[in-house]
Amino acid sequence: MTKIMGAKTKFKNINTYANRGMTLEADIQASNDYYLVNDKAVIYKKPTPITISKVNYPSRREAIIKEGFFRTPSTTDYNGIYKGKYIDFDAKETKLKTAFPLNNIHPHQIKHLACIYKHGGIGFLIVRFTVLNKTFLLPIESLMKFLDESTRKSIPLSYFEENGYIIKDKYNPRVDYLSVLDMLYFDGGNL
Amino acid sequence: MTKIMGAKTKFKNINTYANRGMTLEADIQASNDYYLVNDKAVIYKKPTPITISKVNYPSRREAIIKEGFFRTPSTTDYNGIYKGKYIDFDAKETKLKTAFPLNNIHPHQIKHLACIYKHGGIGFLIVRFTVLNKTFLLPIESLMKFLDESTRKSIPLSYFEENGYIIKDKYNPRVDYLSVLDMLYFDGGNL
Repeated sequence: MTKIMGAKTKFKNINTYANRGMTLEADIQASNDYYLVNDKAVIYKKPTPITISKVNYPSRREAIIKEGFFRTPSTTDYNGIYKGKYIDFDAKETKLKTAFPLNNIHPHQIKHLACIYKHGGIGFLIVRFTVLNKTFLLPIESLMKFLDESTRKSIPLSYFEENGYIIKDKYNPRVDYLSVLDMLYFDGGNL
Repeated sequence: MTKIMGAKTKFKNINTYANRGMTLEADIQASNDYYLVNDKAVIYKKPTPITISKVNYPSRREAIIKEGFFRTPSTTDYNGIYKGKYIDFDAKETKLKTAFPLNNIHPHQIKHLACIYKHGGIGFLIVRFTVLNKTFLLPIESLMKFLDESTRKSIPLSYFEENGYIIKDKYNPRVDYLSVLDMLYFDGGNL
């Protein structure tokens, strides 16, 4: 999502790329750009869903949105294609050190990922524990298993360590999640 | 995209679902809903990409966008999964009777579809000639062939008739484009 960049008297400015290289979102964006340029995969972040209620037309070619509201997304933020397979995931950060609170994910996003799995796609979460500087890929299969077996409101770090896969920090791509998918779904085939 | 619904003194209101059942977009939305509810496919329209420049926060939980601009989309409007395959397409209407002008599609959207094809996905256009009440599915392969062989700035209706596939009007789903994909890519398997 967008980052808040300071405040005027009345408004706050938003700049999506302001923290590039510092946030998980920016790292994934850079990785997806890398995958696209190098013809490895075609994976995009979906735009933030907005309901527009007022638009101003100062000229024929221009439209300025004068009032709008953020909507809850129906799906995850990222999807695309890798080695012919449909890929779908969401990415979340937490500052906690011992667990990832499930209220970070909308129930319909989990339902969506479960649906993708059922239809033969590859679904997962990328979760970064920012203080620990650890980034995990958790397959939807493992997330569903946790939700089936537990009533806890957060997933402990130990569950990620046992059922998830560390995505190692790299220079380029910064968050090389496709290398984990290679190992899990493509017989470790080289990227 | 959004429909303009009349004007106040200064602003115009926009209501995305105002013409539901009348436009190709609404018909595709209803069809995608049908596919999802009946567990046939998981295909969504991407939100319209917007750059937000000012946001107002009247309360902690609320955010009102006070200034924003429409961005040119990087990709097509629709993607998802069907029978395990990645699906990607755009939908366009024309009022013309004899040809579909190519300036209806951004060059990077064609490039994107070609890229999807290369990576093993299924890409196409759905084009409706509204006056003729004819809706065609044109596979990306046929679109690329046209662009390779012709310098024309529009695709003649005859090209759609020869290289595209009519999507018959139905009650539900209204635009049953998956039945065309069944015939083309899934050995005519029943939906």
